[in-house]
Amino acid sequence: MLRWLTAGESHGPSLVAILEGLPAHVEVTTDDISDALARRRLGYGRGARMKFEADEVTVTGGVRHGRTQGGPVAIQVGNTEWPKWETVMSADPVDPAVLEAQARNAALTRPRPGHADLAGMQKYDFADARPILERASARETAARVALGRVASNFLEQATGARIVSHVLEIGGVRTPSAELPAPDDVARLDADPVRCLDADGSKQMVERIDQAHKDGDTLGGVVEVVVHGLPPGLGSHVHWDRRLDARLAGALMGIQAIKGVEVGDGFELAATPGSLAHDEIVPTEDGLRRVSGRSGGTEGGMTTGEILRVRAAMKPIATVPRALRTVDLATGEEAVAHHQRSDVCAVPAAGIVAEAMVALVLAEAVLEKFGGDSVQETRRNVQSYLDTLRFK
Amino acid sequence: MLRWLTAGESHGPSLVAILEGLPAHVEVTTDDISDALARRRLGYGRGARMKFEADEVTVTGGVRHGRTQGGPVAIQVGNTEWPKWETVMSADPVDPAVLEAQARNAALTRPRPGHADLAGMQKYDFADARPILERASARETAARVALGRVASNFLEQATGARIVSHVLEIGGVRTPSAELPAPDDVARLDADPVRCLDADGSKQMVERIDQAHKDGDTLGGVVEVVVHGLPPGLGSHVHWDRRLDARLAGALMGIQAIKGVEVGDGFELAATPGSLAHDEIVPTEDGLRRVSGRSGGTEGGMTTGEILRVRAAMKPIATVPRALRTVDLATGEEAVAHHQRSDVCAVPAAGIVAEAMVALVLAEAVLEKFGGDSVQETRRNVQSYLDTLRFK
Amino acid sequence: MLRWLTAGESHGPSLVAILEGLPAHVEVTTDDISDALARRRLGYGRGARMKFEADEVTVTGGVRHGRTQGGPVAIQVGNTEWPKWETVMSADPVDPAVLEAQARNAALTRPRPGHADLAGMQKYDFADARPILERASARETAARVALGRVASNFLEQATGARIVSHVLEIGGVRTPSAELPAPDDVARLDADPVRCLDADGSKQMVERIDQAHKDGDTLGGVVEVVVHGLPPGLGSHVHWDRRLDARLAGALMGIQAIKGVEVGDGFELAATPGSLAHDEIVPTEDGLRRVSGRSGGTEGGMTTGEILRVRAAMKPIATVPRALRTVDLATGEEAVAHHQRSDVCAVPAAGIVAEAMVALVLAEAVLEKFGGDSVQETRRNVQSYLDTLRFK
Amino acid sequence: MLRWLTAGESHGPSLVAILEGLPAHVEVTTDDISDALARRRLGYGRGARMKFEADEVTVTGGVRHGRTQGGPVAIQVGNTEWPKWETVMSADPVDPAVLEAQARNAALTRPRPGHADLAGMQKYDFADARPILERASARETAARVALGRVASNFLEQATGARIVSHVLEIGGVRTPSAELPAPDDVARLDADPVRCLDADGSKQMVERIDQAHKDGDTLGGVVEVVVHGLPPGLGSHVHWDRRLDARLAGALMGIQAIKGVEVGDGFELAATPGSLAHDEIVPTEDGLRRVSGRSGGTEGGMTTGEILRVRAAMKPIATVPRALRTVDLATGEEAVAHHQRSDVCAVPAAGIVAEAMVALVLAEAVLEKFGGDSVQETRRNVQSYLDTLRFK
Repeated sequence: MLRWLTAGESHGPSLVAILEGLPAHVEVTTDDISDALARRRLGYGRGARMKFEADEVTVTGGVRHGRTQGGPVAIQVGNTEWPKWETVMSADPVDPAVLEAQARNAALTRPRPGHADLAGMQKYDFADARPILERASARETAARVALGRVASNFLEQATGARIVSHVLEIGGVRTPSAELPAPDDVARLDADPVRCLDADGSKQMVERIDQAHKDGDTLGGVVEVVVHGLPPGLGSHVHWDRRLDARLAGALMGIQAIKGVEVGDGFELAATPGSLAHDEIVPTEDGLRRVSGRSGGTEGGMTTGEILRVRAAMKPIATVPRALRTVDLATGEEAVAHHQRSDVCAVPAAGIVAEAMVALVLAEAVLEKFGGDSVQETRRNVQSYLDTLRFK
Repeated sequence: MLRWLTAGESHGPSLVAILEGLPAHVEVTTDDISDALARRRLGYGRGARMKFEADEVTVTGGVRHGRTQGGPVAIQVGNTEWPKWETVMSADPVDPAVLEAQARNAALTRPRPGHADLAGMQKYDFADARPILERASARETAARVALGRVASNFLEQATGARIVSHVLEIGGVRTPSAELPAPDDVARLDADPVRCLDADGSKQMVERIDQAHKDGDTLGGVVEVVVHGLPPGLGSHVHWDRRLDARLAGALMGIQAIKGVEVGDGFELAATPGSLAHDEIVPTEDGLRRVSGRSGGTEGGMTTGEILRVRAAMKPIATVPRALRTVDLATGEEAVAHHQRSDVCAVPAAGIVAEAMVALVLAEAVLEKFGGDSVQETRRNVQSYLDTLRFK
Repeated sequence: MLRWLTAGESHGPSLVAILEGLPAHVEVTTDDISDALARRRLGYGRGARMKFEADEVTVTGGVRHGRTQGGPVAIQVGNTEWPKWETVMSADPVDPAVLEAQARNAALTRPRPGHADLAGMQKYDFADARPILERASARETAARVALGRVASNFLEQATGARIVSHVLEIGGVRTPSAELPAPDDVARLDADPVRCLDADGSKQMVERIDQAHKDGDTLGGVVEVVVHGLPPGLGSHVHWDRRLDARLAGALMGIQAIKGVEVGDGFELAATPGSLAHDEIVPTEDGLRRVSGRSGGTEGGMTTGEILRVRAAMKPIATVPRALRTVDLATGEEAVAHHQRSDVCAVPAAGIVAEAMVALVLAEAVLEKFGGDSVQETRRNVQSYLDTLRFK
Repeated sequence: MLRWLTAGESHGPSLVAILEGLPAHVEVTTDDISDALARRRLGYGRGARMKFEADEVTVTGGVRHGRTQGGPVAIQVGNTEWPKWETVMSADPVDPAVLEAQARNAALTRPRPGHADLAGMQKYDFADARPILERASARETAARVALGRVASNFLEQATGARIVSHVLEIGGVRTPSAELPAPDDVARLDADPVRCLDADGSKQMVERIDQAHKDGDTLGGVVEVVVHGLPPGLGSHVHWDRRLDARLAGALMGIQAIKGVEVGDGFELAATPGSLAHDEIVPTEDGLRRVSGRSGGTEGGMTTGEILRVRAAMKPIATVPRALRTVDLATGEEAVAHHQRSDVCAVPAAGIVAEAMVALVLAEAVLEKFGGDSVQETRRNVQSYLDTLRFK
C-alpha cells in the first residue's frame, strides 16, 4: 500500500505532498527533488511564470541524512510569489477593507472554457472561480513531480528500472523517428527545447510553437514514457484494478489536460490485424524475448520484462490568448473568458509529470509484488524472484 | 464507497460477482441482468462459444422481490459447459489417473503472444498456462456486465442518466458518421451486426470481418460510450484520483484487450490548436450550455452536465488462427502458440463491457457526491442540488 | 492488498464470499472449509438452527485441484432451508397473492432492541425489518469463517504461524486459569462444550448457561485469540491505520455483537503502573525475548515476534426469550420485540469467528510486508527476512 | 471518501497533515486549530516538554478567508525546538564530523520495552532506534488533533453534532460518577487538572499521579468520548468494515499506547444477562427513544440517534523513570532502557486525541451517507433525511 496526497493552491504559500508507504533506506536528497522540479519548468513555449517560479523545496518529514526512514515522506514546495498573495489567499479571514483594495481579490466570474471553472463553481457552490482555479491549476503537478522523484529513486534502487520520457508530437507535428529513448538519453532530451529525440522533429515543433505564438494560439501534443529494466509480473490479470494498464491509464489521465492514453501502440493496434499486432516470443541467448514491443511491455495487465511504453495526449492549453466565448456569471451576459497566463505549449513539461505518475504507479506495483520495509529487503526479494523464475 | 469483486474461471462452475455499497430500493430483476448478458454475446464475427454459451443468471444476495435491500448484491453466472470440465477444473484434488485420462487436462506449455500466459506463469509460478488463461479470459467480463446492469439501473433511477455505446471502428474501417447515439438508439444498435449507428459503416465493417475470417486473421477496433443526462459536478479537480477522466480511463483500460482510451476527442484534441479545441460557453433559454462537445463532457475532471463521451481501443484478438511464434516451455524449443477459440472480432461486445465499466464508475461518483442509502434518498439529494445550483 | 467481500441473507439461497489478493499455491480443500464451518456451529447453549443448519460449501472460483490459482477465491455456503424461503426471499418479484398466503412474509414491525432493526429501517427506508435482519444476522459470519480458513492456511503455509482461540468468560463466569492455549490444543478446545481450556471454568460456564436457559435469558462473554509463530515487524508505527492493533481492533469490533476489544492485557494495563506494565527485553540462547506478554505481542503497532493475543467482549444475544419492550411501527404503540431464535449463548462460536477475522488481518499484514504471488515466494521472502534480521 | 495522512518526526522541523475530501465552506481558522492543540497539552502529570512545546500552526492549503475551498486541507505544526535538532534530523546528508560532535546524534541502541523501538529496528533494518522513535512518538498526535478540529467543525456545521471527552480512570482510580458530559461541559473539563467531570474523582486521580511521581513510576487510564446530536443511520450492518463500531475501534486503537476499546458498556455488557443488557425502545413525545444507553448509541453498527459513547484504555507511559531491563544492541549485553522524557501520565491528552479520531471517523461516515461538496449541501441532505424519516 503506497498512498500519497498533495495539497495547496497555485498562489498559496506552498504546495505540500505526503508519500506514505515507502520502505526505509531509499537514498534521496533535496537536490534530487529540486532537479526534478527544474526539469518540469523546461520546454520551449512556456510563459513568464516558469522563469520566476523557482521551486523552493523543503523535505519536512520521512528523510534523514539522505535516506528515507520508513515513515511518510513530506515535501513542501514554496511559492516565491507568496508575499504578493498573502492577503488574497490568506487562510484566515482578512479585513474586508484590505481585501477590497486589492485588484487581485476581485471575483473571477467569467469561467474559462476547457478549465474546471464552471463545473467547479457549480459543484462547490462558489460565486468566484478563484477557489476552483487555484487548485485545478497545473501548478499542483510540482507536488507530484517531487514525489515522483522519490518514487523513481526507490524504483531504481530496488529493481534497477529507469524511466525516461520524450515528446512525440506537438500541435499536430509528429516526430518522424520511431527510436525509443534509452535511460542515458535523459540529459540530451532535457537539453532539447521540446524534449524530442529527433533533431528534425524538434525543429519543426519549435516552428509550430512560434507560429502558434504569433497566432495568439496554444498547442497540445503527445508524450511517451518509457521504462527500462522492469521485472516481469508487475500488475496482474486477476482483477481489473490490478491490471497495470488500468493503473497507468488512470494515473496519466489524472494529469491536468490529458485526454487520451495509450499503452504501447494503442489506437494503432486497434487498426492492425491480429497476425501483425502481437509480440511473438522467441528463445534467445538472453532467455525468452519478444521480437517486438507493440503491446508496450504488458500482457494480461502484467509487465513482460520488456520495455514498458505508455503515451498521453495533452489538449492545448485552455487559456487561449485569442479569447474564447463564455458567460459573465455575475450578470448572465455573454463575455470573453479570463486570460491569466501565457504559455503557448506545456507538452514537454507534461512528459516530466507523466514520468512522475508512472514512477508512483510502478513503485506501488513493486511493493505489492515484492513487499519490503527497507530497500535492501525489496531488492533481495526482487533478486530472489528473478533467480528462481521457472521460465527465464 | 462502492466496491465490487468478481471471481471465477472461464471453465469453472460459475462466475460470481459482488457489488457492495449500492443503496436500497434499486429496481432490478434477473431478466434485466440476463438481457445485459445477451447483449454481450452479440456481434458479427463471434465464434461458436457465444452461441452455446447461455449465461445462467442467479441473484443470490442483496435483492428481494425486485429491489435491492442495501446489502451486497451477489450474482452468479453459471457455466452450462461445466459438466465437461468438472474434473479438469475441480476445486478439490482429483485422482491423478482420472485426470491423466482427460485430454483437456494436459498442461498448456506454449504461451500465446498477446495473452497473459507467459507473464502470468512467471508471476504465479505455474508450469501450465491453464491457471492463467482461465482467469485472464474475457469470459470474466460477463460478471462485470452483470454488475454493470445493476449499476446502470441505479444510475437511471437516481439521476435519470442513460448509457449507450456504439462501434466507431473495426479493423481500420471507421464509420464516416459523427452522429452520437441517443438513449433510445440502443435497440437499433443491438440489432446491427456490429453495433454501428451508420448503415454504410456497418456494411463495410462486416465485409472487413469476412475478409479477416478468410485470411485466418482477427480484428480490433474502437468503441465509444455516451452518457446522457448526468448532472454537472461528478468527479473533481481537487486530487488526481478524483478526476472522473482518470477513473473512466482506468476502468476502460482495465478491460481485457483495451490498449487506448480517450475522453472526448482525445488524441485528435492534441493536434488541434487551443482556439478550436475547447467548448465555448453560452447562455441559452435552457441555461448555460457548451456549443460543442470536444472535451467529452468533462472539464477539470468533472462532468459539465453535457453529454459524456469516452472511447476505448481494442487490440485484435490474440488467439490468431494464423498461429504466432512462441516457445514450448516444456522443452525450450520454438513452437507455435496454442489456438483455443475462434472469434474474429469481439469489438461489438467490448462496447457492452465498456458500458458496464462506465456505469460502475458513474454510480460510484454519484454516491460520492450525493450519498444516499435508498434510491429515493439519492434522487432527492440530486434534485435538491440541481434546484439550488448557483448557476444553471 | 488483500480484499474480501461477503454477500447473502440469512434465509437466502446461499452466502457468497470472495477473497481477492491471495497468492497462488495455497493448499486448501472444501473439507478444510467445511471443518471450519462445523467449528462455528459448536458450543453449549446454541438453539435448534445450529443442528439442522448444515453448511453446504462449494468453492466456485480461485482453487483448482486443492491449490489456489492466484485469482479471487469464491466460496458459496448454501442454505439447506432455502426451499422453505424461496418465495419470501425471492430475488425476483413474486405474485402478491402467493406472498400473502405465506405467514413468513408478514412484515416485521416490532424492531428488537440490541439489533440493527430500527436504525436499519430508518437508514434504508424500510417499513419491514426483514431486509435489515436478514443481512445483519450472525449467519453472515459463516462466510467470514470460510474465508478465514483460506487465510489461515496461507498464514501457516507461508510463515508457520498458527491461530487458536478460547473462551475466557461467559455470563460473568471467568476462567480462573491464566494458561494460554497452544496450537495443538485446538482439538481439545473444540471438544469442550464452551471451548474453555480449564475444566473447572468450563463446568461453571455450562452451569451458568443452564441457569440462563431456565431464566429465559441470554449470555455474553469474552473470547481470546492467540497466534503462535509470527515474525516480528507485521504492522507498523508509521501511520495509525498501519498499526496492527488498530486493524485487529477494527476487525474484531466488526463482528456482530462485539462491544469491546483488547490487545494483550488491555483495560487491566490501564490500571497497572508503568514499572509493571511492559515486557522487559532480555538476551537468551534463543535470541532477544520478552520476559512477559502483557502487551499481547505488539509494540508500536508491530508484532514483536512473541505470542499475539487479542480479546473480544460479546454482548448477550439480543433476542431475549423474556421479551424486551419496543414499539410496533405499524401502529406506533408499545409492544414486545419479535423473538425469532433461541440460542442462549453464542460465545464459543464467536471465538471461531474471531479467529477468522484475525487470520484475514494477519494474511494482509504478511502480504504487505513480504509480498509474493505464490506461497513459495512469500515463504522465501519471510525466511530471508528472518535470516538477515540485524538483531535476532 | 475522506482521506488523511500525517507526516513528520518528533524532532523534525514540523509535522504536516493533509485532509482530503472535506466539502467546501467549512468555517475554520488557525485559532481553532491552535486551541485544539493547546487542549492536547493539558493535564496534570505532563513533563517539561509540554510547557515549552508551543505548537506553531500554519494552514498551508485548502482554506481561504476562514472557509475550506473543497481541496485538500494542509496544516503544518512547527517545532519550536528545531534549531537544536537541525543537523541531527537534517533531511540531507551532514558532514560526519559535524554529526559526531553532537551528543544528540549518538545511536540509541537500548530499545525501550513498551515502545516501537526494537520491533521497528528489526522491521526497517536500523542499528539506531532514533528513526523509529522519532515517528512512533505521541508527538505525531498533534497532527491528528489539528485535522480532528477541522473534521469536528464540519461535523457540527453539517449535522449539529458535538463531541466531548472526559477521563474515567487514572492509575486504577475510577471516577465514582456515572454522569455523562454535555457539550457545554468542555470548558469545565478542560479546566480540571485531569479532565474528570467529578471533583472527588479528580482529586483522587491527582493524588494518584503525585504518588506515581514520587515512586518514579507512570500511569495509564481510561477516557470516554461522547457525541451528542448525531442522526440515526451512520455506519451500516451490511458489511463488517462499514460498522461504525469497527471504524471507531480501529481509529481509537490506532492511537499510541491504546490497548483496549469499548463501545458503550463494552466488557461490562459481556457479563450482563440479555434481559438487562439492551436498550428498550419506547414511544415518547419526542419520538422513538431508547430508555438507556448501554449500547453506546449504536445498534447493528449504526448510530441510533442516541448519544454515542466510546472508551479507550491507555497503558502507562512506557518511558518509566524506574528503568526497565533491555539489551544494548550494540553489544548484546543486558542494559537498562533509554529514558527520554518524563511525563507521569498523559491520559487527559489522550482524551483530546480520541476526540479527534472520533471526529474524523464520523466526518467520513456523514459524507458517505449524505454526500455533499459544500457544507450547505451536506446539511441540506441531512435535514431532508431527518424530515422524511419513515419512523421518527
